Amino acid sequence: MGLDYRVRCCPDGLITDRRRHVGLVDCTIRDGGICNSWQFDEGLVRRTVAGLRDAGVDVMEIGYQTAAGVVDPATVGPWRFCCEADLRRVAEDKGAMRLSTMVDVGRIGPDDLRPAADSLIDVIRVACYAHQIDEALQLGHHALRLGYDVFCNVMAVTSNTPQQVDGFLEKLRQSEIPNVSVVDSFGAMYPHQLRYLLRKYKNWLRRDQKVGVHLHNNQQTAFANAIVAIDEGADWVDASIFGMGRGAGNVPMELLLMYLDDPEHHVEPIVALADEYTALRETLRWGYEVPYAISGWLNRHPRAAIERMRAERPESLDFWGTLTSDRPIPRHHRATQEAE
Amino acid sequence: MGLDYRVRCCPDGLITDRRRHVGLVDCTIRDGGICNSWQFDEGLVRRTVAGLRDAGVDVMEIGYQTAAGVVDPATVGPWRFCCEADLRRVAEDKGAMRLSTMVDVGRIGPDDLRPAADSLIDVIRVACYAHQIDEALQLGHHALRLGYDVFCNVMAVTSNTPQQVDGFLEKLRQSEIPNVSVVDSFGAMYPHQLRYLLRKYKNWLRRDQKVGVHLHNNQQTAFANAIVAIDEGADWVDASIFGMGRGAGNVPMELLLMYLDDPEHHVEPIVALADEYTALRETLRWGYEVPYAISGWLNRHPRAAIERMRAERPESLDFWGTLTSDRPIPRHHRATQEAE
Repeated sequence: MGLDYRVRCCPDGLITDRRRHVGLVDCTIRDGGICNSWQFDEGLVRRTVAGLRDAGVDVMEIGYQTAAGVVDPATVGPWRFCCEADLRRVAEDKGAMRLSTMVDVGRIGPDDLRPAADSLIDVIRVACYAHQIDEALQLGHHALRLGYDVFCNVMAVTSNTPQQVDGFLEKLRQSEIPNVSVVDSFGAMYPHQLRYLLRKYKNWLRRDQKVGVHLHNNQQTAFANAIVAIDEGADWVDASIFGMGRGAGNVPMELLLMYLDDPEHHVEPIVALADEYTALRETLRWGYEVPYAISGWLNRHPRAAIERMRAERPESLDFWGTLTSDRPIPRHHRATQEAE
Repeated sequence: MGLDYRVRCCPDGLITDRRRHVGLVDCTIRDGGICNSWQFDEGLVRRTVAGLRDAGVDVMEIGYQTAAGVVDPATVGPWRFCCEADLRRVAEDKGAMRLSTMVDVGRIGPDDLRPAADSLIDVIRVACYAHQIDEALQLGHHALRLGYDVFCNVMAVTSNTPQQVDGFLEKLRQSEIPNVSVVDSFGAMYPHQLRYLLRKYKNWLRRDQKVGVHLHNNQQTAFANAIVAIDEGADWVDASIFGMGRGAGNVPMELLLMYLDDPEHHVEPIVALADEYTALRETLRWGYEVPYAISGWLNRHPRAAIERMRAERPESLDFWGTLTSDRPIPRHHRATQEAE
């Protein structure tokens, strides 16, 4: 049945692999924590650190850093803050895998960050909306000076006009930020739309800047969009175990590892953890549901759909009516269709 | 934010739509019936007929026809047989929507089919494996002579070598069968693999023969693969409400209708039915699970994964070990990679 095009046999019979490296960022605890207010069993977090390390995942995003006073610590688990003592209890054995935390512009200031030398954290990912790009750059540059690797994740890019995207990409191009993610916060993108945006990011940014993707599964396109991203040369792909994440969830790490099927990554440690996360899903209920599909398709924030899914019955048609009552025509339009 | 590329305004201000028609085949009762042995509440089947009709679905596949003695009628519901009396109780109001039944080669003979003029059924879809193509053509030609429109669905094409695919396509090209489906029974295909196979089917078959796709969601690629199929000119796409179907299920009809977003189709009637199917999912449990991902990726029949999901705990790593113990290297290979 022919040769696998991705595997080459050396003359001496050894199998080698010439593919470029795709960097994997696991968001299970950070984005999955939105489902349970970051109240994970500590043993599960420790097992997750070990499993991701053994799987060859490059970066584990273990939570958010948040300034004091923004969130009541009594209502959330430790991964909303990522204090150093909490990190050291679970992640001392992380090996070569790097740890990251996300910081939201407006919920933390430069003075709240500790030097990288004093922390297990290696990577800071700054999340912002397009109109917050200047504050994000300020925070990101500060994190760079503290010794971190830094991402800038401009959220909800499907809600921006092409001109707004041009605007923040130009500022990022002129910045020192080394990594930028295309973020489909609403799960609104079809594969052709992500393909277009990824090309745009890669063409606009400097060649030494890396591009990643963070995808949601509202329309069951997250994993297929990750394939598109890899195909288009993405340097980073975000994923989570069993897709755990807000609302419809993220790219399932196990699918991504099976797809990559390369000698640097191993799916077995993730399969070993999957049953624990599958059990969590029974109560936390992330994953595909019709209200998430509706909000994704309409290019809306998932909060209304998440609220609806907490009700006894979703009443999807009523939800559809609520969200489409002010729907403009043509209804299907996305900012990303500029390319057409 | 620019014009929607798919909608044109006529000079007189009316909105018209120049897209080609994509034919939709709903498999909710037929393929979804594998989850509950076709024991649906009759009222739900009646509401489903009406909802699909109102949504503008072209063909509703309401079940299988099966010869007497093949299945014990005490163990299954009426849609395993599709007797005329049962059809007439639920589908008299189907309107312009056509009804289809699937027939499995080896489980029904030509003599078991009634003339189309005596039936509400309009379409017979003959399912076979590649090695059964001659019997399938015989059954299909007989159905044509009885007055039906006919599909031939060659199942599990990912398990065939390119030469085997050439073989059955050549026989289909020389036949009178008007419709042929690419069938990803195992949920094994990535989008680039379906793209390749769909081009192959379309290039090999006559221009007057139509090509469809039947897709499974083991690796969360069913809907993305449906988009690929539409992009490549597929005439027919199979889907089901909330993706109901064997194992990981099918393309969700609601996602497909939102994607098409055309004046011939309406998603609201499907959204109205979705909550009833969502409730069925609570006990019948189709949809993405790690064992389905594993069997899909390994290009195996889903039966072992379905069996495993019926157990108290899936023990995914043990399942992985069972299925990969004899795994050849290169492990990732598909017959469909001939194109590379």
